[in-house]
Amino acid sequence: MKTDRLQSFFWAIRSNKAFETFVIVIIITSALLIGAKTYDISPLAQQAINIADWAITFFFLTEITIRFLGEERKSHFFTQGWNIFDTLIVVASLIPLENSEMALLGRLIRIFRVLRMVSIIPEMRLLLDALLKALPQLGYVVALMFIIFYIYGAVGSMFFAEINPVLWGDISIAMLTLFRVMTFEDWTDVMYETMSVYPLSWLYYITFIFFTAFAFLNMVIGIVVNTLHEESDRVRLEQQGLNAVTLHEIHDEIGEIKKILKEREYERE
Amino acid sequence: MKTDRLQSFFWAIRSNKAFETFVIVIIITSALLIGAKTYDISPLAQQAINIADWAITFFFLTEITIRFLGEERKSHFFTQGWNIFDTLIVVASLIPLENSEMALLGRLIRIFRVLRMVSIIPEMRLLLDALLKALPQLGYVVALMFIIFYIYGAVGSMFFAEINPVLWGDISIAMLTLFRVMTFEDWTDVMYETMSVYPLSWLYYITFIFFTAFAFLNMVIGIVVNTLHEESDRVRLEQQGLNAVTLHEIHDEIGEIKKILKEREYERE
Amino acid sequence: MKTDRLQSFFWAIRSNKAFETFVIVIIITSALLIGAKTYDISPLAQQAINIADWAITFFFLTEITIRFLGEERKSHFFTQGWNIFDTLIVVASLIPLENSEMALLGRLIRIFRVLRMVSIIPEMRLLLDALLKALPQLGYVVALMFIIFYIYGAVGSMFFAEINPVLWGDISIAMLTLFRVMTFEDWTDVMYETMSVYPLSWLYYITFIFFTAFAFLNMVIGIVVNTLHEESDRVRLEQQGLNAVTLHEIHDEIGEIKKILKEREYERE
Amino acid sequence: MKTDRLQSFFWAIRSNKAFETFVIVIIITSALLIGAKTYDISPLAQQAINIADWAITFFFLTEITIRFLGEERKSHFFTQGWNIFDTLIVVASLIPLENSEMALLGRLIRIFRVLRMVSIIPEMRLLLDALLKALPQLGYVVALMFIIFYIYGAVGSMFFAEINPVLWGDISIAMLTLFRVMTFEDWTDVMYETMSVYPLSWLYYITFIFFTAFAFLNMVIGIVVNTLHEESDRVRLEQQGLNAVTLHEIHDEIGEIKKILKEREYERE
Repeated sequence: MKTDRLQSFFWAIRSNKAFETFVIVIIITSALLIGAKTYDISPLAQQAINIADWAITFFFLTEITIRFLGEERKSHFFTQGWNIFDTLIVVASLIPLENSEMALLGRLIRIFRVLRMVSIIPEMRLLLDALLKALPQLGYVVALMFIIFYIYGAVGSMFFAEINPVLWGDISIAMLTLFRVMTFEDWTDVMYETMSVYPLSWLYYITFIFFTAFAFLNMVIGIVVNTLHEESDRVRLEQQGLNAVTLHEIHDEIGEIKKILKEREYERE
Repeated sequence: MKTDRLQSFFWAIRSNKAFETFVIVIIITSALLIGAKTYDISPLAQQAINIADWAITFFFLTEITIRFLGEERKSHFFTQGWNIFDTLIVVASLIPLENSEMALLGRLIRIFRVLRMVSIIPEMRLLLDALLKALPQLGYVVALMFIIFYIYGAVGSMFFAEINPVLWGDISIAMLTLFRVMTFEDWTDVMYETMSVYPLSWLYYITFIFFTAFAFLNMVIGIVVNTLHEESDRVRLEQQGLNAVTLHEIHDEIGEIKKILKEREYERE
Repeated sequence: MKTDRLQSFFWAIRSNKAFETFVIVIIITSALLIGAKTYDISPLAQQAINIADWAITFFFLTEITIRFLGEERKSHFFTQGWNIFDTLIVVASLIPLENSEMALLGRLIRIFRVLRMVSIIPEMRLLLDALLKALPQLGYVVALMFIIFYIYGAVGSMFFAEINPVLWGDISIAMLTLFRVMTFEDWTDVMYETMSVYPLSWLYYITFIFFTAFAFLNMVIGIVVNTLHEESDRVRLEQQGLNAVTLHEIHDEIGEIKKILKEREYERE
Repeated sequence: MKTDRLQSFFWAIRSNKAFETFVIVIIITSALLIGAKTYDISPLAQQAINIADWAITFFFLTEITIRFLGEERKSHFFTQGWNIFDTLIVVASLIPLENSEMALLGRLIRIFRVLRMVSIIPEMRLLLDALLKALPQLGYVVALMFIIFYIYGAVGSMFFAEINPVLWGDISIAMLTLFRVMTFEDWTDVMYETMSVYPLSWLYYITFIFFTAFAFLNMVIGIVVNTLHEESDRVRLEQQGLNAVTLHEIHDEIGEIKKILKEREYERE
């Protein structure tokens, strides 16, 4: 009984609009502190930031605890990815990593606290979920693109490794160079260098650009068509709910009229 | 009574096609003068331009006054953003800012008079309104993109600040560098520099490019889907107006037939 | 009578499939000759090309004459843009421009003969017509973009002219530099240069990139929506032709049934 | 009889899920070996790779043989492009090309074995087939783009060949330079160089960029519209299958009702 009342109490805090706004303000403050640390600041300000940082860490701990205690079914809490992410980030920032070797890791964890902004605002959570959901659909296109990169990378490092080992030394470096070519970043410099040895090597670059551009285009069109499709499905369902009249229903109504007419025919005979 | 007739008179001027064309010609002249000032011109031509400039300023003042006096309800005039913009620009260019320090500001204000072209042509006003209207819809995507930039900026300035302080000195410089990476402008030079210290830092750039490209893509698709949606809604409404027959109406008609048939059944019994 | 038979004869030649293929072969030959001239070739080959060139010119003259004589109504011939284009190109290449000053013009005219390929193949003509037809629709977006360029060009040449006169000397040079910034070509070099004098000038570049990218995006979406719209209109018209049953017709049919039922009611009374 | 049982036996192997997974594992191993060869490796590892390579070659030979023997109608096997591709690649890698001159060709053939990944996974095969199927549709746009490139290439090499023979020496080099301009790669450097001789040559570049960008845009829109069209056709057919009620059917039903009503009228008279 008592735990039930406590749970309701924490749930009330958690659902409170003011509480939510306050959490967002703290996250923004936390983000600003992270930004401030990248500037050259006086040791005093540095210390003030460190204190504020620990205060924020403990606030986040309290907040997560409230969220957890406010949950009706405790086991349900950790089935949601965002809750796990929040808890991990907060717990990890509790570990004291002041010694020089791990200090960078401690700072990295604090930077990722900015992502809590996404987890706290439902609209952003939806947006990111949608982005992540779209990725596997494109799995085969990404795989195909990787195969294109791999084949061109192997061919490139086979022929061009001796011309410029920095760009074509082995297959992984060659694939990075090909990514650069795909972004059109100084790709002609890369090409002219190999063309001085293999004059026909422009064919290698032009075909690569066409293949990847074409595959990328298909990826984009895939997403657009998919999004439009889902959207039109949603619209159709909405309309059916509003109009409540389909061709099916009209067909049934006409069937009933025919039944009435035929019954009467039967009566006469 | 008298003010009413004056108002109608000014309204007539304002709605006059020739007057509108004349205003557009003056705005174009004003734009050409602004362009001319950027060339090396003789002091005489310079003086001619200055005189023409003041003539244009007074013409614009007259024009705005006509517009204001032609308005039926004076209080309504300043509720429209474009009227406020026009008035501010014209009034501001009246202030004499010849002294060297403020001369630049005076020239800037004169440059913005070119924007009056947008405010005077209804089609362009609609276009810009549509552009501005589309922005808030994308609010969350822009916010998400800013978070991505902020996190990568913080990580970048944390690890790379000592390698190249010009590019990664603090979080704001790092975010500008990341914008440059997003536009693919010499991004490999930035990458190769940090890879000489952190050989795995290509992961940082590749993931950043993927995240921002993906978020940008979603933004574009969002606008396309939205535009198509509005368009199809408009078309549907138009068609309903033209055809005037919906499934709903047919359903009602069939209902009436059934009622007639059933009434007769009742009569018989 | 006689001219009529001649006209039919020329029309027959003109519509002949073999003749059309032959014309295409000649145009391709003409294009290859133009390409060959850009290589270093022996004086003998040069002379051979010149002779072939004149042969092609006279063939084109004959062909245009056949086309003109084959036309039923002579006055109709010059109302079509492509016919005028073909005639101008062919007549212009008849003028002997061997002297050094005008030789370049003569070569230019011969290069434009390659465009006859577009005028001869109906599918390509349709494609180019569609491209040209789409342009005016985008008129206001192009005008808006020009205004953005003009304002930024004026501001740029006002502030940055003294920093780098080669890039920002006057408004036309500044607009060319801005076009370069829009294509992201070494735009950071341009920016860093002005940032050393005006540290906040990155705002100028970032806002410019956003405005132009956004306007360009809208242009693209405008074309897509328009194309889809026309396409769906075409499809709807086709379907109406095939199915021949619309909600309207069903509505009329139901109306007839109601009339039958009501007439009978009347009979009874 | 016996061959029939053998065929069923091989068909069973071929359709076996475990066998398919094993083939994919071997292809990935083969790809990894190709990647490994691009690194500096000890002669021992080199030899191990060579042995593994031959083992894979013989496994592929066995696999293709099983596939062929498992096919019910042997003549049908070589009508499918992917089977021909697989067989050619496997047979070609059997030829011993150890001598230095042909060794590169041998390695190239082994690299193309990675493409067997596409041929073995049905989803990827479908994807690539779709990509290839979309190409001819765009034939005329590609041809138009080639004509634009050819004309600009001819003009470019005519005027600029003496300014920079490396970029504009002949028409094929000029077309490569134009492809570079289209990708915006250091195109301003190319432009500034020719502008020092022909100050108006920016017109050449700007118009070229507009034409190709516009043609490319049309190509993309062409694919999008086409894909959306096919998709909506597919959806419509699906819906017709599910609902089984069309306006046509309702029209027929109403026709029957009218027939019933009219027959009765006839009876009465």
